[in-house]
Amino acid sequence: MEFKISKDLILELEQYIVHKDDAGLERLLGEMHHADIAEILDELDFDEATYIFKVLDSEKTSEILLELEDDLRENILKRLSAKEIAEELDELNTDDAADIIAELSQSKKEEVISELDDLEHAKDIIDLLRYDEDTAGGLMGKELVKVNENWSVLTCVKEMRAQAENVSRVHSIYVVDDENRLKGRLSLKDLLTTSTKTQISDIYIKKVTFVNVDAEDVEVARIMQKYDLEAIPVVDAMGRLVGRITIDDIIDVIRDEADKDYQLAAGISQDVEADDSILELSKARLPWLVLALLGGFITVRVLGLFEGAMAEHGNLFFFTPLIAAMAGNVGVQSSAIIVQGLANNTLSGSLFRRLIKEISLSLLNGGILAAILFLGSYFLLGEPPIIGFVICAALMSVIIIASLIGTFVPLLLDKFGVDPALATGPFITTSNDICGILIYFSIARMILGF
Amino acid sequence: MEFKISKDLILELEQYIVHKDDAGLERLLGEMHHADIAEILDELDFDEATYIFKVLDSEKTSEILLELEDDLRENILKRLSAKEIAEELDELNTDDAADIIAELSQSKKEEVISELDDLEHAKDIIDLLRYDEDTAGGLMGKELVKVNENWSVLTCVKEMRAQAENVSRVHSIYVVDDENRLKGRLSLKDLLTTSTKTQISDIYIKKVTFVNVDAEDVEVARIMQKYDLEAIPVVDAMGRLVGRITIDDIIDVIRDEADKDYQLAAGISQDVEADDSILELSKARLPWLVLALLGGFITVRVLGLFEGAMAEHGNLFFFTPLIAAMAGNVGVQSSAIIVQGLANNTLSGSLFRRLIKEISLSLLNGGILAAILFLGSYFLLGEPPIIGFVICAALMSVIIIASLIGTFVPLLLDKFGVDPALATGPFITTSNDICGILIYFSIARMILGF
Repeated sequence: MEFKISKDLILELEQYIVHKDDAGLERLLGEMHHADIAEILDELDFDEATYIFKVLDSEKTSEILLELEDDLRENILKRLSAKEIAEELDELNTDDAADIIAELSQSKKEEVISELDDLEHAKDIIDLLRYDEDTAGGLMGKELVKVNENWSVLTCVKEMRAQAENVSRVHSIYVVDDENRLKGRLSLKDLLTTSTKTQISDIYIKKVTFVNVDAEDVEVARIMQKYDLEAIPVVDAMGRLVGRITIDDIIDVIRDEADKDYQLAAGISQDVEADDSILELSKARLPWLVLALLGGFITVRVLGLFEGAMAEHGNLFFFTPLIAAMAGNVGVQSSAIIVQGLANNTLSGSLFRRLIKEISLSLLNGGILAAILFLGSYFLLGEPPIIGFVICAALMSVIIIASLIGTFVPLLLDKFGVDPALATGPFITTSNDICGILIYFSIARMILGF
Repeated sequence: MEFKISKDLILELEQYIVHKDDAGLERLLGEMHHADIAEILDELDFDEATYIFKVLDSEKTSEILLELEDDLRENILKRLSAKEIAEELDELNTDDAADIIAELSQSKKEEVISELDDLEHAKDIIDLLRYDEDTAGGLMGKELVKVNENWSVLTCVKEMRAQAENVSRVHSIYVVDDENRLKGRLSLKDLLTTSTKTQISDIYIKKVTFVNVDAEDVEVARIMQKYDLEAIPVVDAMGRLVGRITIDDIIDVIRDEADKDYQLAAGISQDVEADDSILELSKARLPWLVLALLGGFITVRVLGLFEGAMAEHGNLFFFTPLIAAMAGNVGVQSSAIIVQGLANNTLSGSLFRRLIKEISLSLLNGGILAAILFLGSYFLLGEPPIIGFVICAALMSVIIIASLIGTFVPLLLDKFGVDPALATGPFITTSNDICGILIYFSIARMILGF
């Protein structure tokens, strides 16, 4: 039951726009889910998208705004007045509203805030703007249901009803003391099955998992996943309840983190998408290519050291790309497994055990590959056995060294607080190219003597 | 507020185990979250973990079982009798219970099922075992709250209370007709604010997003993310409500999918972790290395074709690893962006536009890199300008071709229903090595004539 945009639908919309048939547009889009409409707007050109955006009412457009691709949202926001933006934000949850305000210029930001209708809402949004977007504070919203431990069940139900007006989904009822400090949570079931005179302090659950407002987003994600939570309360340094984070925001964190590791492994240093501008794509890709190019200079130099081999053993140079490729591939495999283990928190055991394991694995894989290489170089490529022996010895050594570099460089980076994912991709292939070629020709010189 | 295992805690537990102090163990672990206990068991050796597992009661151990690493769970299940396993399963939700049963051998499976206490529960579990684990049916659980459209609000509330006993978290109340066909959903708010005599059919919301029981897991994940759902109902081919999927299971799907793409990009073809056995790791890594090795044979052959250049232009061979590395890196970058775009459903526009874009990007990046290369080869490496010209021309061509291969191979694979992530990593670096070197020497031969 997945929504698919059809060409006919796009054509129909464009007809309505051309004829300024606003009623037709509302009829066609009125029943649609805001996420589907956002998908449609992303497919239209900018003027058409803006036209439709202005026709629909702000209850719908505010939600659409959140789902649009960054470029289109930015462009639409530019065309809206501060008052119009404020109308959109009045419809949104505080965390989503704060995210959109954060995208505005400083001057527009202040204008928009001054236009917000609901003062309480405005205060909450401003409060949220203080937090770094990669922290629990940056993720949390202010919409939550909380009750005082000193209340009776009756007061509680009355208060809750009022609070729930502003909260689209009630995940948990949090219990606080007079100082607003988080004390525990309340189960809806207990609330409904207890006498209305009972005090909350007698029935609430004292165990509640929470995060601090300055906890990193990835830590929050880890905790919510581990304990299967759909919402988690956020407290400040004094233990006061300041917000709650819901699972849908955490899914974005999980995906972004996975995407980031993947992009780094591929040598892309910024969050870009295929549809971003050429300049953005170039900026994300070029630094790694320059790094690889500079590494390439070193390989040229290293090969130059062994120029003497060219006269008698020129064939050795035919094998350099093969050796370099094997070093690169092995290094990337090793580093990827470590980076993923670090990300998923599944690494255990000592460094020494890991060392032994990597060497054993390299001997196993290296042995099999060396056997194939020896046979291939003799039968397929017609090299004499002595050359076969040289390249096989080199392959074995290169695989061991490459896997050790691939394993321990990310571990080292992680120890020093650097993102280990930096050590995958171009960085590891380039350094392994250099080491691999150096080892290869050193072994060849040792055996063949040139 | 993240739980961290301390050495002291492990030592304390081991002391209790040595002295068979079960009361001490229960005291220490009794208050802990099952996910934390699972983390502790993963750190202990197998006998210790089993000992603790048998001490704790089945309400706790059933949840722990779900969180353990695969090896440990498998080992513990082997040591439990069919009756003991059935006791664990009686405590679990149907979807989790079915996942655990699916891991058992055929004979043990039947024994365990015959030992299940709750017949209704057993029937649901058996029903779930029919579905492929990568489908909505494989993900769904039977625990849900549903009401008949013909009921009054009063009947509804009474029935719901009974149903909610078996459901730990009520996400939505689904409305069905007499044939159990999904008709819509009910908001808790409406239910509580309407007169008890009202018929459900008058107040329920007719729009509800659902999935078919044989929908793919990634499609379910896409839908739930897009519409920000915390649960989604599952229907069979006749539209009958057969289960519901919750967001926590979908998070696993999202993570697994991201991990799989990442591993394929790194040349790892099975889902392995750093702590898996050497044999498993070798099996996951070796096939890609063999592919790279065979590709390496071809590069040796290709270089052999240009042996004639060695006498006069031997220096050209020093640049082969550089050219191959650039081709590989560019190819991986392009393919990663496409693979991610396909996975996140963010690719739009025509193939032709994409072609133009890739070529423009290649010209931009290639131009900058060629300028650096030309200067570097002249000043750093002391090559004559004519050689600089040759390698720069080669670099430009190689970058264009490599980015086109990187862009269009995954698109092509996707079109033919093959996982495009296969085209990242070793596959793309190997084929780009070969093309890159062939182009490089062909251009060199054209310009230098050898």
